[in-house]
Amino acid sequence: MAFDGEKRLPKACIVGAGPSGFTTAKRLKDYGIPYDCFEVSDDIGGNWYFNNPNGMSSCYESLHIDTSKWRLAFEDYPIPSHYPDFPHHAQLLEYFHNYVDHFGLRETITFNTGVEHAERRDDGLWSVRLSNGETRVYDVLIVCNGHHWDPRIPTEYPGEFNGYQVHSHNYRDPFEPFDFRDKNVMVVGGGNSAMDISSELSQKPIAKNLYISLRRGIWVMPKYMNGQPADKAVLPRWIPTSIGRKLARKAVKKAIGNMEDYGLPKPDHEPLDGHPSVSGEFLTRVGCGDIKIKGAIERLDGDGVIYKDGSREQLDAIVWATGYNISFPFFTDPALTPDKDNRFDLFKRMVRPGFDNLFFMGLAQPLPTLVNFAEQQSKLVGAYLAGEYALPPADQIDDIIQADNEFHTGHFYNSPRHTIQVDFHAYCADLKKELKRGAARADKHGNVIPVEARAEATV
Amino acid sequence: MAFDGEKRLPKACIVGAGPSGFTTAKRLKDYGIPYDCFEVSDDIGGNWYFNNPNGMSSCYESLHIDTSKWRLAFEDYPIPSHYPDFPHHAQLLEYFHNYVDHFGLRETITFNTGVEHAERRDDGLWSVRLSNGETRVYDVLIVCNGHHWDPRIPTEYPGEFNGYQVHSHNYRDPFEPFDFRDKNVMVVGGGNSAMDISSELSQKPIAKNLYISLRRGIWVMPKYMNGQPADKAVLPRWIPTSIGRKLARKAVKKAIGNMEDYGLPKPDHEPLDGHPSVSGEFLTRVGCGDIKIKGAIERLDGDGVIYKDGSREQLDAIVWATGYNISFPFFTDPALTPDKDNRFDLFKRMVRPGFDNLFFMGLAQPLPTLVNFAEQQSKLVGAYLAGEYALPPADQIDDIIQADNEFHTGHFYNSPRHTIQVDFHAYCADLKKELKRGAARADKHGNVIPVEARAEATV
Repeated sequence: MAFDGEKRLPKACIVGAGPSGFTTAKRLKDYGIPYDCFEVSDDIGGNWYFNNPNGMSSCYESLHIDTSKWRLAFEDYPIPSHYPDFPHHAQLLEYFHNYVDHFGLRETITFNTGVEHAERRDDGLWSVRLSNGETRVYDVLIVCNGHHWDPRIPTEYPGEFNGYQVHSHNYRDPFEPFDFRDKNVMVVGGGNSAMDISSELSQKPIAKNLYISLRRGIWVMPKYMNGQPADKAVLPRWIPTSIGRKLARKAVKKAIGNMEDYGLPKPDHEPLDGHPSVSGEFLTRVGCGDIKIKGAIERLDGDGVIYKDGSREQLDAIVWATGYNISFPFFTDPALTPDKDNRFDLFKRMVRPGFDNLFFMGLAQPLPTLVNFAEQQSKLVGAYLAGEYALPPADQIDDIIQADNEFHTGHFYNSPRHTIQVDFHAYCADLKKELKRGAARADKHGNVIPVEARAEATV
Repeated sequence: MAFDGEKRLPKACIVGAGPSGFTTAKRLKDYGIPYDCFEVSDDIGGNWYFNNPNGMSSCYESLHIDTSKWRLAFEDYPIPSHYPDFPHHAQLLEYFHNYVDHFGLRETITFNTGVEHAERRDDGLWSVRLSNGETRVYDVLIVCNGHHWDPRIPTEYPGEFNGYQVHSHNYRDPFEPFDFRDKNVMVVGGGNSAMDISSELSQKPIAKNLYISLRRGIWVMPKYMNGQPADKAVLPRWIPTSIGRKLARKAVKKAIGNMEDYGLPKPDHEPLDGHPSVSGEFLTRVGCGDIKIKGAIERLDGDGVIYKDGSREQLDAIVWATGYNISFPFFTDPALTPDKDNRFDLFKRMVRPGFDNLFFMGLAQPLPTLVNFAEQQSKLVGAYLAGEYALPPADQIDDIIQADNEFHTGHFYNSPRHTIQVDFHAYCADLKKELKRGAARADKHGNVIPVEARAEATV
């Protein structure tokens, strides 16, 4: 129930066995780095394990990933060619299972075991208390607990709503546990879940009326553009990102036109200046009148809602598709707690300044996808733990973080939604360079990671 | 319960009060031509009257017209500006009601009264037997009974299917009268109903598996192209149709790409060489794997179907979205019966050669829409009955029909689906010219319509 690895290397604790967790495990295994991987659920998959008994999956039954299979495949394990362009969550999970089995990772994961508390001791090692009461000590802690499981529900609206309320995290389908048929329903939010759920419920045989409450205009990208999965048509790598963005913007605007022509509010930003919402259905359903557009909410009002424009709608149900908090319930150290706006600065979106034996994997909103992002990030972690990479000097790290933030999110409008946004390809290109720089530093100064826990713990 | 009109004009019988019937009635009223209009249902609307008690509506609950409101409005009655781009059937019906009320047509229509038999007497007048047992005589018969109500179900497949079967004509929603949830379902056909119903049922919370059986490749047009309703971007009128078609083809191909990239069979014709199927959802659902593509059926096989490629699928239900027969149950004259392939030649798609006091309205599949087509056609009927238009000499009519058929359907592949295809705008441009030609003929030879029935019948 662990990977023993090589005795001279530090021992790691991996928290979670979703795609970030098991691709990181695979990387450590490749490097011969010993690890335990703890998963509170009875199986792998995390967010993509529909009805995950760990309560941390946000999958609804109809969910298809909005990234095409061409972009989400792991680089060392091909996605089945018979899969459709945009696989269903069940197919993604099947792919994950095959990956985990193929690389012999399953036996290295301890299931039904959560990490309840993790603390860095004075000697720098990590003390980890498990849900089975056991406490273990590790040289390194690798956090792969995801960031799409702790529902963010607005608390600022006065008044009360008496009808059925559910966060998109707990929404499953139009019939169970709540039957949305013939009901007046409002979906709140403009992200992918809001697009999917409003499209699904708005259909004439389902909701009586479907309202979507949008505080600001959004750009809704199609799944297909010019007959190809929209994310397949990436621009040549040599085009600088700002020019690339300009060209992509033009193509997007030509393909989808003006949002206000569909009856949507005019966005106050350009396409790709916010994390794009993707839907192959939403705009058509708006244009067919199935989805009715409302503005921001002023207050809850018993069996309805009053909007800022003074209008009121009678509602039987509200779906809050209002996103997620970034949280680490196993940390009590305030230095490891994101602020209320989801701000949590990390070096290369992995390393918290001052914590050189702690890694956060997949704690990003990469465009196009998160699925195979940690697989890339783990290249740095593996090299680091194997002594082939060293972090930059502590006094440079903050500046690097600020410069990276500016590069990745500077063009986005400010929102808790955008604090961890990165461009996948730009990130990987930068990571490659950083690995070279870190390798040079490691050659000069050697490995900095302790291996004490390795001796103390399981061997 | 009739429009009395002017005494010196012939009296007409209008069969049906759908949009073809009531726009024709409006035209006759404008001309002062007396008429009776019989509708077997309790209200107007025909196909667009959801759950029409006359059994002739093919509306399903989710149906939105695939023509944008910009193209389907009647020319003398604006469509409400608050309507969405693609109105729901209930909105279209509301628009029809407002039209009928606005022009005072309702009181000229006899409801709950069908035409059971219509026969041209030896003296040329029409003897019409009504469902109330009464028989009336008219100078002119105007058939507006629609052509989307008599389901065409293939009979050529050997074997039997034991599961639930329904023609799209009788499909209403995913739950009633048959609950499609968690069932293996096949939709047969590649027209608009097939696109809509397969998209609706294929959703993960509905069918377990959704197969569509396609005998040939189809082009599926989006509802929106470049951010505009696809039918709004018509080409300037001065572009000849063949060039216009070439340009439109190119734009369509650029927007939707290759059908085989979605996993669909490659069409053996170019876009717009068949009546296009329109759907804002279908291609995305295919690309998400929700809709599974099958080829032609070989035979029915108890609880499943065997396809021509030898594969078999277990099925709980079949939806035959296989189109409609053109039928006139009130005629017994073989000269007034379309052949089994829906071929039924008409001069300007209205006049059967040899029958100069009989008109068929809306008996066409105009691109983009049928809704306001009879409103245009009735210009000829009104002028004719008022003595301001005369038909061409009988010996020229067949040649004109052949030339028109070649113009409107020559570029289509042969199919019962395409026998009555016309290009709406080209048709109207031609009609304008024909009205001028017919006016010149009328000036020379005078009116040819008898007015005997007028005297004999109601006055």
